[in-house]
Amino acid sequence: MVSIVIVGTGNLARQWVDSIEGIEGYNLIGIIGRTDEALKHFEGKTALIKLDEEIPQADLCLLAVSDDAIHQVSLGLSGFRGIIAHCSGSVHIEEIARQGRRAVFYPLQSFTSGMSMRLSEVPICIEVENNADLEVLKQFAGKLSTRVEEINSEDRKYLHLAAVYANNFTNHLYSIAQEILKKKNLDPTLLEALIQHTAVKIKTMSAREAQTGPARRGDSKTMKTHMAMIDNEVYSEIYRLLSQSIQTVYHEEL
Amino acid sequence: MVSIVIVGTGNLARQWVDSIEGIEGYNLIGIIGRTDEALKHFEGKTALIKLDEEIPQADLCLLAVSDDAIHQVSLGLSGFRGIIAHCSGSVHIEEIARQGRRAVFYPLQSFTSGMSMRLSEVPICIEVENNADLEVLKQFAGKLSTRVEEINSEDRKYLHLAAVYANNFTNHLYSIAQEILKKKNLDPTLLEALIQHTAVKIKTMSAREAQTGPARRGDSKTMKTHMAMIDNEVYSEIYRLLSQSIQTVYHEEL
Repeated sequence: MVSIVIVGTGNLARQWVDSIEGIEGYNLIGIIGRTDEALKHFEGKTALIKLDEEIPQADLCLLAVSDDAIHQVSLGLSGFRGIIAHCSGSVHIEEIARQGRRAVFYPLQSFTSGMSMRLSEVPICIEVENNADLEVLKQFAGKLSTRVEEINSEDRKYLHLAAVYANNFTNHLYSIAQEILKKKNLDPTLLEALIQHTAVKIKTMSAREAQTGPARRGDSKTMKTHMAMIDNEVYSEIYRLLSQSIQTVYHEEL
Repeated sequence: MVSIVIVGTGNLARQWVDSIEGIEGYNLIGIIGRTDEALKHFEGKTALIKLDEEIPQADLCLLAVSDDAIHQVSLGLSGFRGIIAHCSGSVHIEEIARQGRRAVFYPLQSFTSGMSMRLSEVPICIEVENNADLEVLKQFAGKLSTRVEEINSEDRKYLHLAAVYANNFTNHLYSIAQEILKKKNLDPTLLEALIQHTAVKIKTMSAREAQTGPARRGDSKTMKTHMAMIDNEVYSEIYRLLSQSIQTVYHEEL
């Protein structure tokens, strides 16, 4: 039986709690939070422990806290003898204070409040300080997902950067598109099929091959018309810059 | 039996041919292209007609040609007595030269070479000049998709603009993300689950609510680190501008 404690009470901590529940051979023995209020959500699921209380020993401690808190929180774990793994894309493994069994257990996904999800296709990116810990984390990750990857801190940083483009920025473009429709009293769900199709297409071809649209075709008349239609200066600048970037990529073909 | 002719031989024309095949009560009687070469793809499926030959009469003519060609091509259809519908998001219905039975039949989707798709969830946006033609187009659209919308030229222009953000620009962000990974010899498919999840999420909440990431949190340390990691000036500027735009939207919450 592998015993686990989780530090943190946010979206990711909730995801871990929901995911660990029901995996045979893994036992969540406690969740550690700053306040009773924050811990309330987990009542009845596992032991609730305040950050200033003594933390129980376990095979693995998952630090599901914000990037900025990782170092500080790990300072308080000096007596913990198991593996300590943070779950961040952008934080170096060495930010964990206690040396010896530091690790990273990073799920490449964006977790939203109130929405636990199946992790089966989510890459879980693992890094260890102590090679003997690798197998433990790999086996645990393998229970959660079919995609387990060993990735070091340097590469993980780039993976996280790429994820910001593919998720955060993409979502903001969805938001701009929905705003444009709402302003004209058009139903934002009109875009749903298009958005799904755009995402699904990258499973069969590279995004570079899949590119279409006025900028890809060098259709400057449509681009000009579009920019004149946008009354938000920042959104208009986004249109200009992204069109320019697309045209740079396909320059030689035009 | 509703008879149809198609002008055009590109991705959209191929999609129409594949979609019409097998719909009971609809008969594709010919496809009209500029050259024998362009028409070759359709051999054995329907009559092949050159643009300078006489165009057969039919109930409906779909103009699946580039935006710039719509007006010019429609000038050659002066003897056609059926409905003439162009299929463009951004072109006004009045760009069709022959008056009387002009129409628009615009599928809100991006069509890729060699990849016909099921249209069942794709909104088909209809506009007619002659109200008596509305029912014909609605019925035809209803055979192709569950989502049929009557949308005028002005609104359709905004729909197309929104689609550029939601599809073309989004795909370019995927492309940047994949490029970042390739440069570090990381597998671009690592992003697949994240990209699918980002797209699926908009079915359950607005993109505005779904936003996550460093800019959303106001995490300027991570944003700074990220921008220093990008060695492509345009991509770096895209990072800065999109982060700024996200921060403007959520300014009051930060």
